[in-house]
Amino acid sequence: MKTIVLKTVNELIAWRKGLAPGARVGFVPTMGALHSGHASLLERARSENDVVVLSIFVNPTQFNQASDLEKYPRTLKADLETAEAAGVDAVFVPKDSAELYPEGYRYRVIETELSKELCGAHRPGHFDGVLTVVLKLFGLVRARRAYFGEKDFQQLSLIRGMAHAFFLETEVVGCPTVRETDGLAMSSRNLRLSPAEREVAPKLHAAMTSLADLAAARRAIEDAGFRIDYLEDRVQPTGEIRRFVAATLGEIRLIDNIALPESENFAIGGPV
Amino acid sequence: MKTIVLKTVNELIAWRKGLAPGARVGFVPTMGALHSGHASLLERARSENDVVVLSIFVNPTQFNQASDLEKYPRTLKADLETAEAAGVDAVFVPKDSAELYPEGYRYRVIETELSKELCGAHRPGHFDGVLTVVLKLFGLVRARRAYFGEKDFQQLSLIRGMAHAFFLETEVVGCPTVRETDGLAMSSRNLRLSPAEREVAPKLHAAMTSLADLAAARRAIEDAGFRIDYLEDRVQPTGEIRRFVAATLGEIRLIDNIALPESENFAIGGPV
Repeated sequence: MKTIVLKTVNELIAWRKGLAPGARVGFVPTMGALHSGHASLLERARSENDVVVLSIFVNPTQFNQASDLEKYPRTLKADLETAEAAGVDAVFVPKDSAELYPEGYRYRVIETELSKELCGAHRPGHFDGVLTVVLKLFGLVRARRAYFGEKDFQQLSLIRGMAHAFFLETEVVGCPTVRETDGLAMSSRNLRLSPAEREVAPKLHAAMTSLADLAAARRAIEDAGFRIDYLEDRVQPTGEIRRFVAATLGEIRLIDNIALPESENFAIGGPV
Repeated sequence: MKTIVLKTVNELIAWRKGLAPGARVGFVPTMGALHSGHASLLERARSENDVVVLSIFVNPTQFNQASDLEKYPRTLKADLETAEAAGVDAVFVPKDSAELYPEGYRYRVIETELSKELCGAHRPGHFDGVLTVVLKLFGLVRARRAYFGEKDFQQLSLIRGMAHAFFLETEVVGCPTVRETDGLAMSSRNLRLSPAEREVAPKLHAAMTSLADLAAARRAIEDAGFRIDYLEDRVQPTGEIRRFVAATLGEIRLIDNIALPESENFAIGGPV
C-alpha cells in the first residue's frame, strides 16, 4: 500500500469524503521528527481502525519562543518513510501555516485552569495553541479515535478534557511513554542534545523514579546539571498520583512524568 | 408527527445515533421565548433538511449581567407548541446548565477581534459565551446546516467564522431579520418593553433606515428617548455596507442592523 501525501486542507477534505461512510479513522497528530514513540501510536492506530491518518505540522501558535519554533527538528523525508512502514493511509503535511490558520489566530480554544499550571505556567499561551490546532485537525479528520503519548501528559489531559467539553466525535486515547533503553523519554527535542548532554539526560528519569522524596529528587536532578522548571506530585482525577518534571539541560528543555506506586516506598526515601 | 423533547445530553446523543447515517439534520439553536423570527428559521430548516432539531437553552455564560440572565423571558410551554406546529422532530431543552457545562466553563472558544467590537465592547465576554455554547451544541447535534437570524448579525458573523476556522461539518446559514409591521425587529427582549416603550421602539429602525447621515440618525434616536451604545456603518467582507445600532430604552437594550443601499441617497441626507 502506498501512503498518500496531502498538502492542503482541500486535498484532505476531498480525500476524507472519499472514505466509506462507516470507516473507522484513527488519527495521530504530530509535529514530525518521528521517533519510536510516534511509531507506537501509529501501530496502535493501525490495529484499532480501518484507516490511519498522520498529520505533520510544526504548529506556530504553540511556540512561545520564536527560536524554539525555528530550531524544532524537521525530518520530513524520514518521517514519510516511517509513515509508509507503519501502514499509514494518508499523511497530512500542510504546505504552510495559512492552510490551518486561514483567519490567522482570531479563533482560539482556551482552558482556564490546568493550562495555566506546570508547563502552562512556564510557557504562556502554549496550551491554547495546542488545543486550537488539535480542534482544527479534529474538524478536518473526523476520526473515531486520536492517539497521544503520555509523555506529554498535561497535553493529553487537556485534549481529553476539550473533547468532553465540546462533545467531539473523536475519542482521545492516551498511550504509554516510550523510552530509550537508558530510561530517557523519547522526544523529538532529544535530537538537539549534544553528545555530552545526551549522556546526562537519563538522570532526569532515574532521579524522579528512584527518589520518593521530592526534595531529594530535586537535589539529584540539579546535581546532574539541570535547571528545574517544576517537579511536582499531583493526584489525577482517576486517583492515581503522578510526578511531573520539566528541566533544562544546556538549551534543551525536557519534560517527563511517571505514575507513582501508591502508598509504597521507592528504592530510597519515605512514602509520598 | 409528535415532537420529542430531550432533556439531557445523553438522551440527545442516543436519539442522534438512532438517525439514518445520511440524514440531513437542520439545527436551530435558541434561548427560547420563540417569536415569528424563530419560526422563520424553523420553517427554512424544515424545507432544507430531513430532520429538524431545535435547542432551547438560556446560556448563562453569554450574560454579562446576572439580572439580564434572571429576567430573560421563559415561555417553554408556548415554545414547545411552536416547535410542534413547525414540524420540529426533536427539541433539546437541557434540564440544567451542568448538562452543557459538565466541566464548568474551563474550556472556551474565544475570538480576538470582531468579538471585542460593537456589542462585544459593551458586553465583555458575551461572544466568548455564545461561541462556546454553539460549539458544544454543534458537537452534539452534528447538523448539516444551522440557522441563525441576521438580527444578531455580529453573532452570525462570528459563528460563521468559527465554523470556518475549526472546519466544522455544519454550514452556518443566515436568515433575514423578521420585523413587526411597524418595523421593530423581532426579539425575545421585546416582551420586556412596557406598553409606552413598545410604542417608541420602532423609531430605532425608522431612524437608522431613513437617515443616511449618521449624526442625524443618532439625534433622531436619542430624541426618541434611547441611550445609544453604538451606531456605526461597517463594510462587510462581501463588500456590503451595514449599519449597526444598539440602544437602550428604559431598561431594555435593543439591537438592530440593516444593509445600506450602496452609493445611493436615503430619504434624507447625503451619500454614506
